[in-house]
Amino acid sequence: MKIGIIGGTGDIGEGMALRMSPHHDVILGSRDPEKACTTTTCCIDTLCGRGQTCSLTGVSNQEAVNKGDVIILAIPFAHVRPTLAGLTGFEGKIVVSPVNPMEKKDYFMFVPPPEGSAAMLIRSLLPPGAHVCTAFNTIAANRWHALDEELEYAVPVCGDDPAAKKIVMELAGTTSKLKAYDAGPLAGSGMVESLTPLLLNIARYNRMKDVGIRFL
Amino acid sequence: MKIGIIGGTGDIGEGMALRMSPHHDVILGSRDPEKACTTTTCCIDTLCGRGQTCSLTGVSNQEAVNKGDVIILAIPFAHVRPTLAGLTGFEGKIVVSPVNPMEKKDYFMFVPPPEGSAAMLIRSLLPPGAHVCTAFNTIAANRWHALDEELEYAVPVCGDDPAAKKIVMELAGTTSKLKAYDAGPLAGSGMVESLTPLLLNIARYNRMKDVGIRFL
Repeated sequence: MKIGIIGGTGDIGEGMALRMSPHHDVILGSRDPEKACTTTTCCIDTLCGRGQTCSLTGVSNQEAVNKGDVIILAIPFAHVRPTLAGLTGFEGKIVVSPVNPMEKKDYFMFVPPPEGSAAMLIRSLLPPGAHVCTAFNTIAANRWHALDEELEYAVPVCGDDPAAKKIVMELAGTTSKLKAYDAGPLAGSGMVESLTPLLLNIARYNRMKDVGIRFL
Repeated sequence: MKIGIIGGTGDIGEGMALRMSPHHDVILGSRDPEKACTTTTCCIDTLCGRGQTCSLTGVSNQEAVNKGDVIILAIPFAHVRPTLAGLTGFEGKIVVSPVNPMEKKDYFMFVPPPEGSAAMLIRSLLPPGAHVCTAFNTIAANRWHALDEELEYAVPVCGDDPAAKKIVMELAGTTSKLKAYDAGPLAGSGMVESLTPLLLNIARYNRMKDVGIRFL
């Protein structure tokens, strides 16, 4: 699978590249392609040091869109509009949103846009030919990076295109020990996105770290 | 602990009575006190048949409020306003809301009231001296009733009164093998309530039954 990561130099994007590039062709994008190259070198060194081979290249965000079949938007909610406004070529691509619209007051609060979720906003900003799926929302950056540990979490996946959803569920299901679950249509993404501020509150109020979920 | 259950003849209320009455004094309320008595007899028979003793009485919803220290509102969201409009005496009580405002279209959707959650609506309908906590939202009725199985799920608890929240967390933590988590203030209850329609979708789209969650 050719996976383009938008925002690949962020904590989450880099962590996803580390986990996915041993099994897929990862095209790591950034606003600053030089930074993308630095992060890529860093990731390759880390994986080589662990005796793992990988396929990873650092490019601009636009090139990550162009070269990827699955495009992961590893960016904060506040960056969604400006980032997508500067990119083209999403027609026919599978676009994965792990984005969680939330605010921190004394505690974390799910604060969706008028569209109901980050995923529905993203869909409204992309051409109709882009197949948006919600996935990977609840995996903390530290967990993506902790390569000595398997990721034994649930990944609920929302989306309206069955073929695209199947591919995203396969991607999730072959990443560490993540378990993908079909969570229904894209319009239900808010219920998945609101898990993340909930988990941040659970971590905060119970002195836990990087809390994830499992369904049973 | 003296636990009054409003709506104790419903699936969830009866299941909670079965699980809690061996360890606490459960006062099972109903709009129809006769029905409350029938359910109570039924529960006592079930528990006796399993060699368990219990403390369980069937009364009106109003008597359940009067006699309980912790009052559980085991009612559907649509019944919240009319039920609370007919009851008094909540001052000084701990009121537990396992209520989830949701709608079923093709899939289940979290549809909160303008207050943001069922719990915040409930708080607005009760006197200021009532201490509202959100808890037990995600445990399916079938699981409450399956007495041969332990309940090994997470129970996120929201609330603004630390003493009340501590008591509700103790109640959850001593019910089967439930694990209570502090999920922050009552204003964050929507993130807990929206878990239930999400879990119903997970069950539906992945051919599972009575799905629950665990944090890890």
